Amino acid sequence: MNETFLKACRGEKVPYTPIWIMRQAGRVLPDYRELAKKYDFLALCKTPELAARVTVQPVDALGVDAAIFFSDILTTVEPMGMQLQFARDTGGPRFLNPVRTKADVERLTVPDPEGGLKFVKDAVAILKKELADKVPLIGFAGGPFTVATYMIEGANPGKSFLIKRMLYENPDLLRALLDKVTRLTAAYLQMQVKAGANAAMLFDSWAGILSQRDYVDFVLPGVKQINESLKNLGVPIIYFALDGTSFYSRLKDCGADVIVVDYRERLDHAIRHMPGVSIMGNLDPFALFAPLPNIEERVKEILDYGAKARGHIFSLGHGIMNDSPLDNVKALVQMVHRLSKRS
Amino acid sequence: MNETFLKACRGEKVPYTPIWIMRQAGRVLPDYRELAKKYDFLALCKTPELAARVTVQPVDALGVDAAIFFSDILTTVEPMGMQLQFARDTGGPRFLNPVRTKADVERLTVPDPEGGLKFVKDAVAILKKELADKVPLIGFAGGPFTVATYMIEGANPGKSFLIKRMLYENPDLLRALLDKVTRLTAAYLQMQVKAGANAAMLFDSWAGILSQRDYVDFVLPGVKQINESLKNLGVPIIYFALDGTSFYSRLKDCGADVIVVDYRERLDHAIRHMPGVSIMGNLDPFALFAPLPNIEERVKEILDYGAKARGHIFSLGHGIMNDSPLDNVKALVQMVHRLSKRS
Repeated sequence: MNETFLKACRGEKVPYTPIWIMRQAGRVLPDYRELAKKYDFLALCKTPELAARVTVQPVDALGVDAAIFFSDILTTVEPMGMQLQFARDTGGPRFLNPVRTKADVERLTVPDPEGGLKFVKDAVAILKKELADKVPLIGFAGGPFTVATYMIEGANPGKSFLIKRMLYENPDLLRALLDKVTRLTAAYLQMQVKAGANAAMLFDSWAGILSQRDYVDFVLPGVKQINESLKNLGVPIIYFALDGTSFYSRLKDCGADVIVVDYRERLDHAIRHMPGVSIMGNLDPFALFAPLPNIEERVKEILDYGAKARGHIFSLGHGIMNDSPLDNVKALVQMVHRLSKRS
Repeated sequence: MNETFLKACRGEKVPYTPIWIMRQAGRVLPDYRELAKKYDFLALCKTPELAARVTVQPVDALGVDAAIFFSDILTTVEPMGMQLQFARDTGGPRFLNPVRTKADVERLTVPDPEGGLKFVKDAVAILKKELADKVPLIGFAGGPFTVATYMIEGANPGKSFLIKRMLYENPDLLRALLDKVTRLTAAYLQMQVKAGANAAMLFDSWAGILSQRDYVDFVLPGVKQINESLKNLGVPIIYFALDGTSFYSRLKDCGADVIVVDYRERLDHAIRHMPGVSIMGNLDPFALFAPLPNIEERVKEILDYGAKARGHIFSLGHGIMNDSPLDNVKALVQMVHRLSKRS
């Protein structure tokens, strides 16, 4: 197996800087689009053979140094009693029974993921074989605050952010909800790692709607609890708080081996706050629309900044856009490998 | 006139920390809601007597230390040739003729604001008299990048961010557009100050969708140009880049006397990057939904942090929510005054 990705996560010497691309599984690949015409999104997630197939596609098509399990951060909480749908028109997620009251929170169970999420375990087991001579597999979950944002809102939050109202109006209720989601998330990631995932990643896509104070109070403890629960499993732990520039100074002790930096902050500035961890990032996904020489110039800059970290994994600073030019995506992967090659 | 606000902007000694509230004119006040039933939003903006009336309302109702001119950041570019509408249902702005091509940019004029924006001058003149024995008036405009975001998108951008595609695909076209908007914005703010506004504020609500590098390259030069053009008019210049934590280290030389810090970053951390300017901020608007003792505890913390700045103006870290409890808003103003009183 190509272990460059795992070595960079652990801060070990690597022959070149590894790269993977957020949302590489799906969207941008023609093979995926064909599959997505035949099956709806949740069927792709929940059928182990299909999820595994979509997961492997970008490894072969793009030449990235890691695979990331194809799934959605919201499927995790379905077995708690949440009814999930994806809108046919927008593709946006929707919970039919949003969580608003004490009774709603009390009704949620914290089940063993081996039950309602066994399809994930099965898909990871298939992938373990398929990827054995290729690249590592990243297992992942949504951060509890991010998942709770959808559970409370019922849909993609606009600017009303019901979760922030709950945080201020009824902080104990929010803590009770976060506690349940945190426990399931920890068990879910443990299951993925035990089934064969080589790294575990936590995506906190909505953490950036909080002040640093509220982040430290309401989000960070759950993140630490999850990371702590994975410590003895021997795989790198990766944490991503989108729009988290205000939090970087607080993340060095969150228990993750790798912190993802979104496209906003200069990578070397972010690294200064987190000297002891490896860093993942951070090309703006929109840069893939630029001409290749402009992309190359930006890649060089990021590689230079990244060299200051304990370890650097190149990635986009957010998810790739659906309509990114595929040739540029492929060129990016080759470019990172070529420009970072150590002699 | 109560000059506490202006003194804090200039870093002079003040008897207490002044406060104003982003979007204090409108929405949260019952008087405004009554008016909004009778007149549509653009009529309120464009009728000098009505705009003046809405501007004064919060000064009397809330006891804030500054008035901010009631307007919208998008009315400014109508005289350039942009056709603006506000949707009846959502209240969201829409340009009927979005700017996408070279021809679109070339078609835009840079008119004298005394022509198409004379209603603003007239409203400010009314306010100058009405506020003479009360508080200073803040004139404002949208930052050129923020206004251009709407001009290109045609509506509230989702996540497609056509302006970011243009930035990478056709940077020269974006620069040409920004140049035109920048020149009009500078002239527009000059007009407001000459008509009687006591401070000039630039709102960059969409700057935070950029990397630091792109912000410095595409946004900061226009901001500096506008601030420079206002320098000799003798009023404080205030700049707000929403979600701008990644930019604070670059803002100290932008020519503003006051930098607004949104609710994300801890105020004392932000101040460290900008020792030479006054700071405005930064209570999370959602905190107004908390019980009063919790609000008070947060206000104290922010006042303590703010004391480290050259000058501190208390404000929310983003616009107030429509349905904020009015009693809490009033209590906030009194609380800031009481807790910050110098003996």
